[in-house]
Amino acid sequence: MGVLATVKEPRDLRDLTEAQLDDLATEIRDLLVRSTSKVGGHLGPNLGVVELTMGIHRVFDSPRDRVVFDTGHQSYVHKILTGRADDFDVLRQEGGLSGYPSQAESEHDIVENSHASTALSYADGLAKAYAIRGEDRHVVAVIGDGALTGGMAWEALNNIAVAPDSRLVIVVNDNGRSYTPTVGGLATALASLRTDPRYEQLLDVVKRRLNGVPGVGPAAYDALHAMKKGVKDAFAPQGLFEDLGLKYVGPVDGHDRGAVEQALTQAKKFRGPVIVHAITRKGFGYDAAERHEADQFHSPQPFDIASGEERKRGRIWTDHFSEAMVALGERREDVVGITAAMMHPVGLDAFQAQFPERTFDVGIAEQHAATSAAGMAMAGLHPVVAVYATFLNRAFDQVLMDVALHRLGVTFVLDRSGVTGDDGASHNGMWDMSVLQCVPGLRLAAPRDATRLHALLDEAVAVDDAPTVVRFPKGAPPADLEAVDRVGGVDVLVRDGARDVLVVGVGSMATTAMGVAERLRAQGVGVTVVDPRWVKPVDPALLDLARDHAVVVSVEDNGVQGGVGASILQALNAAGIDTPVRLHGIPQEFLDHAKRDAILGRIGLTAQEIARDTIEAVSALDVCTPVPLAEEAADDTLA
Amino acid sequence: MGVLATVKEPRDLRDLTEAQLDDLATEIRDLLVRSTSKVGGHLGPNLGVVELTMGIHRVFDSPRDRVVFDTGHQSYVHKILTGRADDFDVLRQEGGLSGYPSQAESEHDIVENSHASTALSYADGLAKAYAIRGEDRHVVAVIGDGALTGGMAWEALNNIAVAPDSRLVIVVNDNGRSYTPTVGGLATALASLRTDPRYEQLLDVVKRRLNGVPGVGPAAYDALHAMKKGVKDAFAPQGLFEDLGLKYVGPVDGHDRGAVEQALTQAKKFRGPVIVHAITRKGFGYDAAERHEADQFHSPQPFDIASGEERKRGRIWTDHFSEAMVALGERREDVVGITAAMMHPVGLDAFQAQFPERTFDVGIAEQHAATSAAGMAMAGLHPVVAVYATFLNRAFDQVLMDVALHRLGVTFVLDRSGVTGDDGASHNGMWDMSVLQCVPGLRLAAPRDATRLHALLDEAVAVDDAPTVVRFPKGAPPADLEAVDRVGGVDVLVRDGARDVLVVGVGSMATTAMGVAERLRAQGVGVTVVDPRWVKPVDPALLDLARDHAVVVSVEDNGVQGGVGASILQALNAAGIDTPVRLHGIPQEFLDHAKRDAILGRIGLTAQEIARDTIEAVSALDVCTPVPLAEEAADDTLA
Repeated sequence: MGVLATVKEPRDLRDLTEAQLDDLATEIRDLLVRSTSKVGGHLGPNLGVVELTMGIHRVFDSPRDRVVFDTGHQSYVHKILTGRADDFDVLRQEGGLSGYPSQAESEHDIVENSHASTALSYADGLAKAYAIRGEDRHVVAVIGDGALTGGMAWEALNNIAVAPDSRLVIVVNDNGRSYTPTVGGLATALASLRTDPRYEQLLDVVKRRLNGVPGVGPAAYDALHAMKKGVKDAFAPQGLFEDLGLKYVGPVDGHDRGAVEQALTQAKKFRGPVIVHAITRKGFGYDAAERHEADQFHSPQPFDIASGEERKRGRIWTDHFSEAMVALGERREDVVGITAAMMHPVGLDAFQAQFPERTFDVGIAEQHAATSAAGMAMAGLHPVVAVYATFLNRAFDQVLMDVALHRLGVTFVLDRSGVTGDDGASHNGMWDMSVLQCVPGLRLAAPRDATRLHALLDEAVAVDDAPTVVRFPKGAPPADLEAVDRVGGVDVLVRDGARDVLVVGVGSMATTAMGVAERLRAQGVGVTVVDPRWVKPVDPALLDLARDHAVVVSVEDNGVQGGVGASILQALNAAGIDTPVRLHGIPQEFLDHAKRDAILGRIGLTAQEIARDTIEAVSALDVCTPVPLAEEAADDTLA
Repeated sequence: MGVLATVKEPRDLRDLTEAQLDDLATEIRDLLVRSTSKVGGHLGPNLGVVELTMGIHRVFDSPRDRVVFDTGHQSYVHKILTGRADDFDVLRQEGGLSGYPSQAESEHDIVENSHASTALSYADGLAKAYAIRGEDRHVVAVIGDGALTGGMAWEALNNIAVAPDSRLVIVVNDNGRSYTPTVGGLATALASLRTDPRYEQLLDVVKRRLNGVPGVGPAAYDALHAMKKGVKDAFAPQGLFEDLGLKYVGPVDGHDRGAVEQALTQAKKFRGPVIVHAITRKGFGYDAAERHEADQFHSPQPFDIASGEERKRGRIWTDHFSEAMVALGERREDVVGITAAMMHPVGLDAFQAQFPERTFDVGIAEQHAATSAAGMAMAGLHPVVAVYATFLNRAFDQVLMDVALHRLGVTFVLDRSGVTGDDGASHNGMWDMSVLQCVPGLRLAAPRDATRLHALLDEAVAVDDAPTVVRFPKGAPPADLEAVDRVGGVDVLVRDGARDVLVVGVGSMATTAMGVAERLRAQGVGVTVVDPRWVKPVDPALLDLARDHAVVVSVEDNGVQGGVGASILQALNAAGIDTPVRLHGIPQEFLDHAKRDAILGRIGLTAQEIARDTIEAVSALDVCTPVPLAEEAADDTLA
């Protein structure tokens, strides 16, 4: 850590020699590879923005000038250059460095949201506000070509183009990919810009340097030096950006420090909104990442540096969905799969391999995913739209108006629902079971295990006159839990003679509910455990069961406000059933990053805590006299 | 009604002579003006698409070919040409013709949603589905230049551009306006296209014909004849559309039937996605509309045909907000106003007139409105984003992640909340108080009258570390209701000695709550009526009040599922308070169009119905013995 040790804040970059800057780039890549090899993280995107980020911090003056990173997962280099290099050994750990910008960590961080395509809107607002307030500050927005496929980015560009007073520099980090190659007309346009004969020489630079990467491992990026090829200072405004009236500089080789700084300096001097188009390579400088076919180590598991081999992970929910979709595709010709730029992460890749003509990657465009699905359903297909739970919020209006109002059979599969943990507040899928409650006709299922995922997906795609949702969490599903009975649509998992407590376990929380039951029964409390399977609408059978018990306990990995428990409470109230209900879910707040289990423990969403609360309720109601609950070991909290 | 009487379905158009078609256009305009003069409605947009819609129905074969109208309010001509001309005397009346496409009305209608910018996504889905199913059908999407500013449209174009098999014709109805002139880089680009020397001759056509409009009234459009000027068959793909790889035909004079049909025929032959760019005039052919400065009679009140004078309306909620904003702007330099292409409808025009540099029209771009507001708040301003309640759903993710997660002081003002009625299901603002419940930190106020609107807006903009929402309905506010006391933040409007029933009136429903109280008191039931003012979070004082009463009754003009009543129920449950709660709100379903009061009567959201239900609850609980409720006259239902 020769040069890096001397960089504590951005201004320290300014006095470095060219040779030192070259060394610094190498040291940064080394740190990125070493850190993520241990804990995982967004390696590929960050390897691609080393020189770009260095250039930004040499040309602009953060935090006076503001740097906004779109999605934020490519802010590791920024973190390293703003005094946080030493914290990379606690990257993504509880209490340690966040994987995204964080205002709590540094005054150089400003936007924490990791949903894509927002940076230009933030930047437009910041720049306009500084103009109004007469503050002479620049705003730099760094956005990938993938994020430009999102509608918000278009809305922002349309506005930025007519704000001549904005000191706004938009750095397009064009690596041709989001997770996987960017799709659509824009991508084609950018590609044709890259292959314009005028820029051929420039592209040669990138190509030659890539060929020069000697091998794998940290040594690979030692050989890299920023070649200061003569790039034309500025080209005439280009295509799309020209049409919108935006000034444009580029394209520049995003790994050529000199070219990057020259372009940024020029953009800064312009004192109005301007786009700097930088061409980069995701995974640049680490051979294993560049060669990684699926996504250039977008966000690998821990891996071996020399071989680039990722730590094996067990089968996760996504794998089961992936399998189920292929089976569905074989059985039903009308089923199509839609993803918003996340073919692999949501597991639609297997379906795509088998049914390419029935698979659509729409770009980072959840709104279009939902409404084009509505169109397909109108024409007799049954689309399955697979997204991360938190990203469905982007398409709430489309689910409500374009699908539900038109009574269309579209199935939304929400992966990474509930607490996801590592990626912080904006990745947790804790909203869907609340916001979707008000959508007329919509049916929502939460499978408790892999077998139920297959079954409920089949039930969902059988509904052809309403939107259906199937949601499941991150990670591996719990072991299969067989039902002892089914009442209405509700699976009964445990049934005692005494009907003291009805525990409603939503989705994978059914396993936690079983842990609650075990503890209650040990205290002599009679328990029924049910999995409603379909949580919206509330099953009338669930109301009958509630009527027959002294206390109802609901357990869900969704925000407690207006979630499944609350909807059961409301349904009981409407039916005039006054059985007391104890709601357990995620407290309605933004959760800091940590491991999923650690968070569940901290918020009390564990069998132990829920059992304790239930015993208290039962004792207060004088239903029966539970034996006092014994103290449990801390590692036993997740039953 | 000479020619019109012979047109019962689109194919009847094909055999008409040129002269008959000219007459038909005149008869259609006459019908549009006459109908809307009586009941109001979307006159301006429909006058602009007479020739365009005739052309579409002559060239394409609906319903085999599908015609999708973006926002749908410009579908009147389509309705006239598909057998519904005779129904225009019951336009927008309960049980009569909807102001938007309606599947229940006609097989020629398909998309009912009136939220903007969705048509291209629907069309992309439809066209892809037909391609997969091997059905040789065309899809025609009609979208305004205003709607192209919405991010969804961009997402769709990006996808359509790489779907070569789609039989998709995108008709851009370019009148340079949404309600008011379209803003942003795109608008500038389209304007420069219109003024390209190559098309000068074409524009002359439009200009000359406009100058030829002789006067006002129905006679004005008699003189209009489609001039079949020679328009170049097809120009090379243009600018933005070219960059995306989309084929392009135009621009054509959208009031020149011959040119329109030629362009559409050419587009149809292409058998792949293609854009037809038609230049039209909003309000074309009716002088009073063309001269109408604010919005070319976008959606006038009933008016006098000869003078173009609209029926005067009383002061509505919007007027009070408009006034309050100006006062706020005078007091606080940091307050800025943001609208999504609805400067006049939301009443920001007065603020704009006084503080132009602090007013932003972002186009039909609610997402950008919210997130650029977040950026402004980060830089020390306090933005007020004024939108219709139903449209905030478009920006739910942005409110949650970009504003609330970052603890920013942005105020959202939701006009047209609750039941709006005339415009049908997708205009009712019945979702906001449900979906926003789960947003951490967000505070939501519902003023009961004009005085409270001023006060609560002031309180809202005083919050600088969380999003605030102020929501009010369509129409005129009820008479001011003074409080007899305030407990916590809760206004007490009525307080009897006996604490039998606590009626919680949300927003303007406080007036209905007073009507409930009157009826209950007449029966000897002791009543307290409160207005919580801030409905989220639930005020602790409200819980204390609930504890002191035998029954709680909540009344809100929001979907009952997960709304304010439900959140009170949940808060009472969490606090261990078991006072029974009766929830009254809008049933969770899509409401057909009708007058607001008629709908409130139909769904039982009236003082009479709520009093009846409450008496039932009170009797069952044996709280007191109410005197039987007398039968009331039907016209007395709204207290």
